[in-house]
Amino acid sequence: MIINTPIDMHLHLREGDILKDVLPYTENQFAAAVVMPNLVPPVDNKERLLSYKEEILKTAKNFIPLMNVFMRDYNEDELLELKELIFAIKLYPAGITTNSEGGVKGIESVYPVLEMMQEFEIPLSVHGETHGFVMEREREFIPVYEKLARDFPKLKIIMEHVGTAEMLDLLDKYDNLYATVTLHHLLLTLDDVAGGMLNPHYFCKPIIKTPKDRDAIQRFVKSGHKKVMFGSDSAPHPLKNKLKGAAGVFSAPVILPALAEFFEGDIETFQKFISDNARNNFNINVPEKKVEIVKEEWRAPYIVGEIKPMFAGKIFKFKVIS
Amino acid sequence: MIINTPIDMHLHLREGDILKDVLPYTENQFAAAVVMPNLVPPVDNKERLLSYKEEILKTAKNFIPLMNVFMRDYNEDELLELKELIFAIKLYPAGITTNSEGGVKGIESVYPVLEMMQEFEIPLSVHGETHGFVMEREREFIPVYEKLARDFPKLKIIMEHVGTAEMLDLLDKYDNLYATVTLHHLLLTLDDVAGGMLNPHYFCKPIIKTPKDRDAIQRFVKSGHKKVMFGSDSAPHPLKNKLKGAAGVFSAPVILPALAEFFEGDIETFQKFISDNARNNFNINVPEKKVEIVKEEWRAPYIVGEIKPMFAGKIFKFKVIS
Repeated sequence: MIINTPIDMHLHLREGDILKDVLPYTENQFAAAVVMPNLVPPVDNKERLLSYKEEILKTAKNFIPLMNVFMRDYNEDELLELKELIFAIKLYPAGITTNSEGGVKGIESVYPVLEMMQEFEIPLSVHGETHGFVMEREREFIPVYEKLARDFPKLKIIMEHVGTAEMLDLLDKYDNLYATVTLHHLLLTLDDVAGGMLNPHYFCKPIIKTPKDRDAIQRFVKSGHKKVMFGSDSAPHPLKNKLKGAAGVFSAPVILPALAEFFEGDIETFQKFISDNARNNFNINVPEKKVEIVKEEWRAPYIVGEIKPMFAGKIFKFKVIS
Repeated sequence: MIINTPIDMHLHLREGDILKDVLPYTENQFAAAVVMPNLVPPVDNKERLLSYKEEILKTAKNFIPLMNVFMRDYNEDELLELKELIFAIKLYPAGITTNSEGGVKGIESVYPVLEMMQEFEIPLSVHGETHGFVMEREREFIPVYEKLARDFPKLKIIMEHVGTAEMLDLLDKYDNLYATVTLHHLLLTLDDVAGGMLNPHYFCKPIIKTPKDRDAIQRFVKSGHKKVMFGSDSAPHPLKNKLKGAAGVFSAPVILPALAEFFEGDIETFQKFISDNARNNFNINVPEKKVEIVKEEWRAPYIVGEIKPMFAGKIFKFKVIS
């Protein structure tokens, strides 16, 4: 099968050696990806943005990075300048995810920026979790999404890496809410993290939740819902950091083979989820890139640099032809 | 304060070097402990039982091990012989916990043994979890407890390491059901395992659950309920095995200091929970041993042999005088 112009709407590439190790896997499978800005220091100004983009483009020639910047109190001039360079601005509730210690605390403190983003048509990307109990953080964040959606009706808001069934119900309730879904929240549950031996490689934020949540996500994705887009949240951490408890799943190497199995021949819905919905919802214009997937056994890598990927060593029924 | 004859109703001691490393902490705080039989191979016959008990007594002089054996298809002669040597027989649903691969699958397959245990007045100790979703395994096991309690009304059945609020409601519903509560299920939630960085040292089975579950356990324990007994389930694993995902919390070093803080001066309830309830419910006759706890700052060990304890390095307000 041929997939046309796949786009990963949520990707962590890091910098330096890790970027060099992981980016080829995304370039091999995707035309473009939204690159997240939670580096140390964060990507939150034009200079840092341009130098990070340059580093990415040095490694990947046949790939379009759609850059995000980290939320802060941008002024109008900064936003107008950034507008041409970025896809969206990423909002992390403070202290919840990797390198997000600089994230905003009260949503209202960024309202002036959100006003301008709405006016300038810059989308908002949100890591939607409260500081509550780990299994309830997304559910508790739902009122924040609803408030944002109502207060900024023309601001396009992306609920990133949705892992809780009830969040998906917001998509039909608010025109301006969208969702990305990761491979791991689509296919796994907390059982894969802690049901047998503890598996740090499937530990991430938002934590992978219940079978009920996973099944609801699968139903939404299989329905071809127009506002549900693939965003891997592939987040590479060296093994030694994962063993110290770092959050993130490195799924980049296995995405298209795993999704080809998941869609069981329904190429039309696969195409919408992996590309068309994103392009239509956000008018993303990137050069066409056809990616061929063949039905042929393929084994996922056991290790990539110092990083253990999702489904390491697993044999898939599909292979990407590079 | 003086605690009279504390008993740990659920303890893992292992064998060899680990036993030598960990047992002094229990001996220092407890008069006796129920020693669990899930070694490799399991303790499930008289010879293995006696040699294991001998190994324990070589290390701890001022301490009574109350021995459990692993459930299997014991015959009448074996049971009559074991009766004088053991406290209870431990039932693990197959494949759920460490070294429990030999556990029974269908509860009814052990009914002939349970009939004899009831007749011979040998208590049954149960790890109550199904094979379902990790957060629901205890709740799903409740009907099994109810069936056992009804089918063997004179068999004393201990619901071990209760971590789910609803299980505690069974105590007032069935005369013959009892419960042990661990330090970690009493004080922690899944947030301590996976709310921040992943913490493998608080990963155990049954998994530590929600704030609602923890709060219900705290209420039951603080109420002084007669059928609720302390059982640490302290389960030492060398660091290298914890980092590979082994389940178990090594709480032995910190139990009395942590409980002294928890009970906030309510020595009467503390005494019931840590000793009297167990002695009354099961007619446990062990020599009296007074343990003194003083209000003095004490720092929990960072490491014991190769094992990282619960609350490693934490400063407590209470100290056990040995």
